[in-house]
Parts: sequence; C-alpha cells; structure tokens
Amino acid sequence: METLDERCVNTLRFLAVDQVEAARSGHPGLPLGAAPMAYVLWDRFLKHNPGNPAWFDRDRFVLSAGHGSALLYALLHLYGYDLPLDELRRFRQWGSKTPGHPEFGHVPGVEATTGPLGQGFAMGVGMAIAEAHLAAVHGRTRFNVVDHFTYALVSDGDLMEGISSEAASLAGHLRLGKLVYLYDDNHISIEGSTSLAFTEDVGRRFEAYRWHVQRVEDGNDLKAIEAAIRNARAETDRPSLVMVRTHIGFGSPKQDTASAHGEPLGPDATRATKEALGWPLDRPFFVPDDVAAHTGLALEKGRKLEADWQEVVRAWGQASPEAAAAFDRADHGELPEGWDQHLPAFRKEDGSPATRVASSKVLNALAPVITNLLGGSADLAPSNGTALKGIPDFSAEDRGGRNFHFGVREHAMAAITNGMSLHGGLIPYAATFLVFSDYARPAIRLSAIMGTRSVFVFTHDSIGVGEDGPTHQPVSQLASLRAIPGLTVIRPADANETASAWAVALRRKGPTALVLTRQGLPILDAPLQAVREGATRGAYIVEEAEGGLPEVVLVGTGSEVSLCTAAAELLKKGGVRCRVVSMPSWDLFDSQPTSYRNLVLPPAVPKLAVEAGATQGWREYVRDSGDVMGLDRFGASAPGPEVMARLGFTAENVAARAMALLKRP
Amino acid sequence: METLDERCVNTLRFLAVDQVEAARSGHPGLPLGAAPMAYVLWDRFLKHNPGNPAWFDRDRFVLSAGHGSALLYALLHLYGYDLPLDELRRFRQWGSKTPGHPEFGHVPGVEATTGPLGQGFAMGVGMAIAEAHLAAVHGRTRFNVVDHFTYALVSDGDLMEGISSEAASLAGHLRLGKLVYLYDDNHISIEGSTSLAFTEDVGRRFEAYRWHVQRVEDGNDLKAIEAAIRNARAETDRPSLVMVRTHIGFGSPKQDTASAHGEPLGPDATRATKEALGWPLDRPFFVPDDVAAHTGLALEKGRKLEADWQEVVRAWGQASPEAAAAFDRADHGELPEGWDQHLPAFRKEDGSPATRVASSKVLNALAPVITNLLGGSADLAPSNGTALKGIPDFSAEDRGGRNFHFGVREHAMAAITNGMSLHGGLIPYAATFLVFSDYARPAIRLSAIMGTRSVFVFTHDSIGVGEDGPTHQPVSQLASLRAIPGLTVIRPADANETASAWAVALRRKGPTALVLTRQGLPILDAPLQAVREGATRGAYIVEEAEGGLPEVVLVGTGSEVSLCTAAAELLKKGGVRCRVVSMPSWDLFDSQPTSYRNLVLPPAVPKLAVEAGATQGWREYVRDSGDVMGLDRFGASAPGPEVMARLGFTAENVAARAMALLKRP
Repeated sequence: METLDERCVNTLRFLAVDQVEAARSGHPGLPLGAAPMAYVLWDRFLKHNPGNPAWFDRDRFVLSAGHGSALLYALLHLYGYDLPLDELRRFRQWGSKTPGHPEFGHVPGVEATTGPLGQGFAMGVGMAIAEAHLAAVHGRTRFNVVDHFTYALVSDGDLMEGISSEAASLAGHLRLGKLVYLYDDNHISIEGSTSLAFTEDVGRRFEAYRWHVQRVEDGNDLKAIEAAIRNARAETDRPSLVMVRTHIGFGSPKQDTASAHGEPLGPDATRATKEALGWPLDRPFFVPDDVAAHTGLALEKGRKLEADWQEVVRAWGQASPEAAAAFDRADHGELPEGWDQHLPAFRKEDGSPATRVASSKVLNALAPVITNLLGGSADLAPSNGTALKGIPDFSAEDRGGRNFHFGVREHAMAAITNGMSLHGGLIPYAATFLVFSDYARPAIRLSAIMGTRSVFVFTHDSIGVGEDGPTHQPVSQLASLRAIPGLTVIRPADANETASAWAVALRRKGPTALVLTRQGLPILDAPLQAVREGATRGAYIVEEAEGGLPEVVLVGTGSEVSLCTAAAELLKKGGVRCRVVSMPSWDLFDSQPTSYRNLVLPPAVPKLAVEAGATQGWREYVRDSGDVMGLDRFGASAPGPEVMARLGFTAENVAARAMALLKRP
Repeated sequence: METLDERCVNTLRFLAVDQVEAARSGHPGLPLGAAPMAYVLWDRFLKHNPGNPAWFDRDRFVLSAGHGSALLYALLHLYGYDLPLDELRRFRQWGSKTPGHPEFGHVPGVEATTGPLGQGFAMGVGMAIAEAHLAAVHGRTRFNVVDHFTYALVSDGDLMEGISSEAASLAGHLRLGKLVYLYDDNHISIEGSTSLAFTEDVGRRFEAYRWHVQRVEDGNDLKAIEAAIRNARAETDRPSLVMVRTHIGFGSPKQDTASAHGEPLGPDATRATKEALGWPLDRPFFVPDDVAAHTGLALEKGRKLEADWQEVVRAWGQASPEAAAAFDRADHGELPEGWDQHLPAFRKEDGSPATRVASSKVLNALAPVITNLLGGSADLAPSNGTALKGIPDFSAEDRGGRNFHFGVREHAMAAITNGMSLHGGLIPYAATFLVFSDYARPAIRLSAIMGTRSVFVFTHDSIGVGEDGPTHQPVSQLASLRAIPGLTVIRPADANETASAWAVALRRKGPTALVLTRQGLPILDAPLQAVREGATRGAYIVEEAEGGLPEVVLVGTGSEVSLCTAAAELLKKGGVRCRVVSMPSWDLFDSQPTSYRNLVLPPAVPKLAVEAGATQGWREYVRDSGDVMGLDRFGASAPGPEVMARLGFTAENVAARAMALLKRP
C-alpha cells in the first residue's frame, strides 16, 4: 500500500475478490495476478471515454480470458463507466450488469462477449483489421478520424486453443502493428501446472508468426509493464505479445495453485489475502478516496478526448461532406440510401446459375454501392464466389483493400469477422463450404449471442457436392445451424431468392448464414416480386395448385425446390392438385403472423418436406399428416446428380411419397 | 525415366493423374508434387503387410491432405493392397473403392478418413500415443509386440488449421518420437500463393512446439528425403517434421499454380505432362513391368514381417498367457468377460449425485477391469469427473499412464481420441463441457463417419450450469449432436442411467456422446433393472399413471426427468393420470421396434416433452397433439436453480403446460 499505483492495483484486486465472494462463484485467481498489467494499460495508455462507451475512435480492450470478468467490471467501475458498485455486489446474479462472463451489449464498456477461450484473441484481430482498414479509407488525410489501438488480455488457455494460432498467424502476416496483447503467463491451468500439457516455447512460437515478443519477468513490476507496452505501441510493423509472468491468486493462500482459478477464496482466504496485501479486512468493495479521485479523472479526460475528435470530424465534414457522411452512416450501422435498387434481378434467360454464382453477382453488384461491405473466404474464394472484382486485397501493403485471404482458418475467420463487426463501421462476410461451418461453429454461436452483423456464406450445401464425398457433403449442418438462437439461416432456391437473402442479411442487426449450392439451379417460374417478398418472409407459394385448393403441399428448400416443381409436374399429370412452397428460412417464416403461415402451409392439407439433409425439425412444419424426405445418413462419393438420385432425391420419388401421403397408388 | 526409382515415382504420379482424368474430377496437383516423398517413405521405410491391412504392428500412414487421395490409391494399388486398377479407373464413382477422399473402413489400407484439413494431422498424434502406450503396457519385455511408427503427409492447409497447432503442441510436449510427418511444402493454396495468407516461419513454429524440424530443398531429391526420414526415425525424443519443398502439379503446364490443385489437368495438359516426364502418352494407368515387380515385393515382405511378429506373439502367449490374451481381446475390440458386473448400482441412499459424478464413479469402477479404457479432458478433469483415481498420467516419462491432460484443446483432443481408437487396442474417451463440444465438432463428425469407438463425455449440460452464463450454457448442442448420423447421444436422468449409458458406449462400435449434468439429480424411484434396461432402449416408463392408462405423458431427458416426476406429483394431486417417461437417447429409442415405441409413447395420448434446450426435433415424438417445453433462446448468468426457474423450468409450469394440453384449467 505504499504508492497510489499500488493502491489502485489492490483496489482492482479486491473489488474482484469481493465480487466473487458475494456471488460465492467466480474466478478470483486471474484478477489477483493480472490486476497490475490491466491497471498499467488502463491508467497509462487506454484511450477511451467512459461517459460514451460507443465513441468510435476509442482503443478497444478485450478480456479474452473472459473468466476474469470480475477484474473487467472492477476496471469499468473505477474508471467511471455506468457500472455502479451495486452492480458489482450483484455479480453473477439474475438481471445484473455483471454476468459470469463479459457480455457485449449487456455491460457498458464490454467490447466483446468472451469466456469460450481463444474467441477474444481472434476477435481482437478482427478489430485491429477494422481499424487499419477504416484508418486507410477515412483517416489518411489531415483528418485523422480513425486511429486507435486494440488491446487484449489473454491467458494460457487462449493460447492453447487452435483458433488463437490461426488468428495469430494471420495477424503476423498482415503486420497488424496496432495490436497489443498482454499474456497473463501464470503457469496454472485448471488441471494444475501448465507443465502438464503446455510446455511449448510460446515466445518463439509467436516470433515464428512474426510477432514482436517481449517478456516481463515480474507481473507486479508496473514500470516494466509500462515500458513493454510502450515498446509494443512503438512497434508499428508487427503485432505485439507481452508475456507477463504472473502468479495466479497473487497474495492469497492459494497463490500458484489451480484452486485459485475458478472458485471463491472463501472468507478465511479472503481475509488472509487482504492481510497479506495490507487491505482493510472488513470493508468489502472498498475504494480508497485517492484511488477513486485518480481513476475518476478518466471521465473528464475521456470527454475531452472525444470532444477533440468530434472537432476533427466536424472539420472533416466541412472539407469532405460526402466522405464524412458515409463514415457517420457506417458508424451507425446504416446502409446507403437506395442500395437495394442495385440488387440484381435474374430472368429465365440467365440460365441456371448455382446460388453461389448468383451470390457472387449480388455481392459484386452491391460492393460499389455499399463501400463498407467486405470480406473473404478461408481459401475457397474461387469456389465460394466471394471475391469482389476489381477491388484490391486487404494486405499489409494495402489497408484499403476489401478482399480478405483468411487462409485455411475457418474458425479464426468467423471470429475475426465478429471482431470486425463489433468494431463498427463495417459489414463483414466470411465464406467457406457449408460442411466446414462446423470448424467455425463456436464463433458463429458467439455472433448469435452478441447479435453482431456477421454474414456467413456457406456454399456446397448438400450431397449435391458430388465427387468430394461424405467428408465434404453436409448433412447435419443445416439442422445444427438452425438450432442456434438468433442466427438467421437462409437456403435460397434460385438466384432471385439469393438476392433477397443478401438483402435480409444486410438489413439485419444479427448474424445470417447463407446456404448456397455448388450446382446450377433454374430460375423459379414465379413473378419476381413474389419471389423477392416471399423469400424475405421465409416461405411462400412458388407454384399454386389448380384452383388454389391443393390436396398436397410440397415444401422444399434450396436445390430441392426445383425438384419439387418437377415432382409437381408429375403429380399434376396424375390429376393431383399440388402446391409447391419454397421455404428458404425457418426462422424468418416462424416470425410471420399465424395467418400468413397458415396461408402458405394450410393446417388441413398434407405436406411433404423435401430437403437433402437431416430430417430433424421438419415435423414441426409438416405435422402428423405430413412426411419428410430427408437424409439421415452420410452421403457418398460420385457425381452430384448421381448421388442425389441414388439417395432418393428424384422427382419420381417425391411424387411417389406425395401420393403415399394421399394414400393413392 | 532414368532409374527404377524415378519410374516408380512417375508411375504413382500418372496413376493419380489418370484417375483424376477418368473421373474428370479430383486433385492432380498434390500427387505430382508429393509422389517422390510418398514413394521414398513407402519403399524404404513403411512396415506393413499389404495382404493384411489390419496387421496390428504395422506402421500407420495417414494422408492428412486427403484431397490427394489419388496418390494414396496409387500407392495402395502398387504395393499390393486389394485395390485393383479397375477400382482406380472408377475413381470418385458410385460404389467404387476409390472415393473422392480416403475413407476408413471402405478402402483397404486407409488408416483414417481425411479431407477436412488438420484432422489427419491430429489423428496421427492419437495413433502415436496409442502406440507409445501399448508398447509400454505390452511390449517392454523381450516380446516386442508393439513397435511401429506413425507417418503422415501434411499440407499447408493442414498446418494453417488450428487443430494442427493444438495437436502439434501436445505431441511435442509428450515427446512422441515415433511420429514422423512429411510436409508437402508447395507454396500454393486454392486462392493462389501461400504468400497471400501464410507467411509464418513454419519450421520455427514447430521448433517452438519442441519438434525436430528438417528441410529438404528439392522435393524430387529421393536421397535427401530418405536421409531426412532416416534422421527423423533416429530422433526418438521428439516428433519430426520434414519440410519438403515441392512443386504442385510438378511437370505439368500448370505447375506452381493454384489451378493444378483441384481440377483435372485435362487431356492436353495431361499429354504435355507425360511428355515432359517421359511417360507413354497413350497408355492410361500404365504400370511398367519392372515397377510392378519392384513394388510387388512388398506383399511377400509384408507377409514375412507379420509372420515373424506372429511368432513373437505366440512365444509371448506361452510365456504370459493372460497378458497376451488381453492384448488379443483388445486388438479385436472386445471387452473382458464379466466387465458389466462391475457397473455400480446406485440407491436412494446414495443421495443426489450429479450425473457427471455418477459417471466418474462408473469410470473408476470399470477402469481396473477394462484396462484399455483411458482418456482425459481438455483441462476440465476436475469438473468433468474423468480422472481415473490411482492410475498415473500418460506423459513423456510414463507411457503406461491412462490419464490424459489434453490441455485447452478440445478439437485436437477429439481427433486424437479418434486416432487412438483407429489405432486399435484401446477404448479412449475425451471430456469437456457440452457447450465446448462445438469446438470439437469436426472431429466428432469424423468419428461418426468412420464409426470409431470414441466416447465423448460432455458435462455441464444445460442452463443448470448457472452463474457462468450464456457463453457456458449449452442450448443448441443437444440438437446439433443429435443431427449427426451414427453418433449415439445419451443424456441420462440419474446415476443408474449414467451407468447404462457408459455400458452402451462401451458396447458400441461407433461413437457415443454422454451428456451429463453439473448439478445433483435424485436417483429415480424405479426398479434398478427397469432403469438399466430402459435406458439402453433409449426411453422407458419411469413412473406409470394410476391404472396404467395415462391421460398425458411427460417426456423428459436428463435433469428434466426429475422435474417431470415433480410435476407428475402435482398433476396427480389434481386428479390427472400422468405417466413419466425418461428418454435419454433419441437414436437408441428410434432403433426399437414400433411396438415398444408405441408402448412407451402411446400415439393416442398427448405428450409433453421437457428439455432445457432447443425444441428442435421434439415434435417427431410428441406429434400434433403434444407440446414441447424447451428453450429457444440463450440462457443467463445466475445461480443454476434460479436460471432454471426464471426460464420456466419449474414443476408448476410443467404441470400447467400439461393441463393446457388436456384443455383443463
């Protein structure tokens, strides 16, 4: 308790410990060990405005080791964010602003939802990419409107996760010099010493990724930490990892043990820790006056920082009104006026483009208009159709580029995309084969929890993939993506539905998965307006039964809609009054009024759902009187049309199943 | 065409090219570049018996870059496996033994299904672990029955995937000296040069993982490759990476371009390539006689190798009949007689153990009997309850240990588990929180495709997790795992169901996911035998309505079964005849005869399904007249019982929903 700095650090430590004690749940070990580095960063370097956590040009700070949430809440409280002590007292309680792990959108000042390890590491890379791009696009004049750092606090758990390796390799490749990560190197994981499973040379590994690596031998040495961060900021050509040797549960009787990690110290150990560090024993949530006065300065300082920035933006607005207006619009997540006039319309004469090809046309039609739309693929751009033609790559040399080469790194790609979206000002998309959405799943899930506008483009969406065989043929992926709350999943049936799907994705605030074919699909034979509007409602009538009174409804998605229309042809010849419904999206359809849903899928009429994927969940739509033609097995290697036919997806089979429903031969 | 070696290499090259040409689909680039290293490995080093691909002590060879399947099929054919030229001619065709990517169990000699990048890399690590363990357990006498290498051919795509980083770090930590990986370093990925996204220093990175790294500058230099492999084998204390600089599409007009990767050369370029490499132009699938004679020697050599080994095994059997018998049984995937007598029975007096705690008891009761049962957790063993008590850790120092510390590496853990299972002789399990099954999903999927006996233990299975909040509370995971064909998913309702679930998992050939609670659950009030047998059938009556004629059936899984019994109590008080069904496994239930299914879930009786997870798929069981009480949103941070109650999972709510089904107030 010698110096104010030390008192600030201990205030953070014990605000965290006291939160965990109050909740009788949580992680005291990280805050005790890592409070000094967090303090130095926030106190000496972090550019932010606690009064406005949304200030665009703030530095971003991500607590990738999200289990240390109590430390983050302590920081936010001390530095003047709208997080009163009463919220800290309700740590991990229902309805509090201090949930078990940091939640974006729920806690003011939390930049990303973290906890699942490695995600924060990769999202930070996405934020740094966003900064670099926006700085290049908007800031390289005398009006420097985007110019900030991205920091993260990462743990050994983060560094063990593969996603971090992917993100680190890409960050080094892209020379993201304004990325500074502090590694809480405490030598302890849940099962015990990291020597049980993690004896790699982390520093050398990050040097191999072309990072700038520094070591701080004593995690309590504020000066050394400060010097290292200063060096890291000065190194503008490489991302920086500062490895800080800390002690989990510092000062407590459990110091340097796994039991300090994830359970409360308990009253005795808490007391012993406070005694050891010279802290008042009977004042939980104690904030010394001089600490409050010191950290409280951040509010005024932040207000001024933002005010100065607003001045620059205003001046920029006068000098370049259009650019500044576009920036402001993007900052607020809005789309340029009239953008949807540029959505292409496809006609019969356009042939039978695969929906991935249609998607490429849509993207390239919109890219010149929506200039903050950008993204790429995990090394499958030629297959995914995600390249923006005539637009440069984003690279270490060209920050203004909008085409991203993520490498074969689906997981980091998705998390980086989330980070770009969280940063604001951009609409990022990420692409791979549908089957490899599994690799990216934890990040997709997180986008749904956070509600980021991440657009996932998943092509090669069924056994229709053909020769590549079962490893590359998605069967369960549609069902598993649909099971994620808040993720809109759209599988368009033709090029025009694909355009609508993109429109939905761009208008939404949350994430969308576009599920697209490898193989060509005919343009649906229905009025363009009906297709466009119908697709945005999740399901609609593509082809009506004669007289509008169907005996049976065929419900398809994606490539199976044209299969249904072919089957309907056969059924009509057989005298069956048959309706065909295209149902690109369950969740969009579920949000329609009952009247609309009953109109499209009349409860009294038997329905046959047709989809080349797991049947799971379809019973909800076809009900007892209906049937589902799906695929509850893995596929096989052969030309796509043959696989489809061998596994039963023929017009004849669809017609026969429909006849069986009607109990006709 | 100077030497026999060169002719062998070119035979491999053009058998691969001709396969791709015949199929008009596939990947000629890798085989053209990597044929020399594959040839050197197979010709000079690989210990195998083409006449018996299942010979236990063979070296394992994994083509992690599975898209190069045509090269593997060429090798298998040339070296005498049961893969005739006619199969190569039917590359990628329906029913052929030459599918687009190598498929374990389908193609003789294929050790692992590969294609999704990084999986083969990590499965190889599992195989090497299995070898090290079995060698320690069985082989360290004068009877050296387990003593082989694990090789893989890996690509830049493999090395970019995070799963490889995880597996490499663990392999280095474990000092797996008999692991030798050849890196086809061809500088080209699908989007173009690897310089677009992959400029890390791969060698330095693997040195940081504590691998032994060598470089071969010319991928056609057979001598240099041979020397490097020889060195790699001699280095017994570290896994080896041999970085071989190759040229994708070597010899073809497309050499060193991305277009050589994944599309046929076409007739012209094929001709040009054959010309350039001095190959007959008009003899597709040409195998020179001297090449056939040379590679054909492998059959006889292999027969002798295995015969010699069988001699050793026989001698061992005489010296140590019990040990040898156990080895033989394990080799054949069988369990020791009477093992199931050791399954613990839990009684009311045992309190309310969480199913993760019950699982720990079951595991520890079986571990002394099933001595080849082994596994661990991704740094959550204390939470997952997967530690085998009194049994050492598997480590670099103790290969006989059976407790694994996988580190925070869920993805590699699952793939390594698959590799251990593929190796044979072991029954491996892998554990993490259910929510993090997402991280492991691509490997879980692959276990289902391959049908490996991998046991996945997923604890903390619902919002019941409590304070850790939405990031740690699985909601969609049950649905998404159930969507994977061939994966048995079991969510037991109490300790006895947990024992049955383990029994199912151990008896199965394919993979099983055990889904277990964090929180305590009462022992079900039903006869032990009924519970045990009922659980193995996927669903059964836990509590019957008075008179056996229910008006309503409550169907629960896991922790929601006791919620249903509590609700049944309330309903009975209200005069409702209510049955409670526990349904731990959809897939086990689906495989029962209709009569049994209709007995448990009578079609005419309304059913309410209760599960704290996505409702998706339940309609199939409750039908139109029923209802589903699930959770189609993310959870929240608060104590577990409170989260359950706040999100509607109370006995009162269940009873009210049941009453609503009966249209009673």
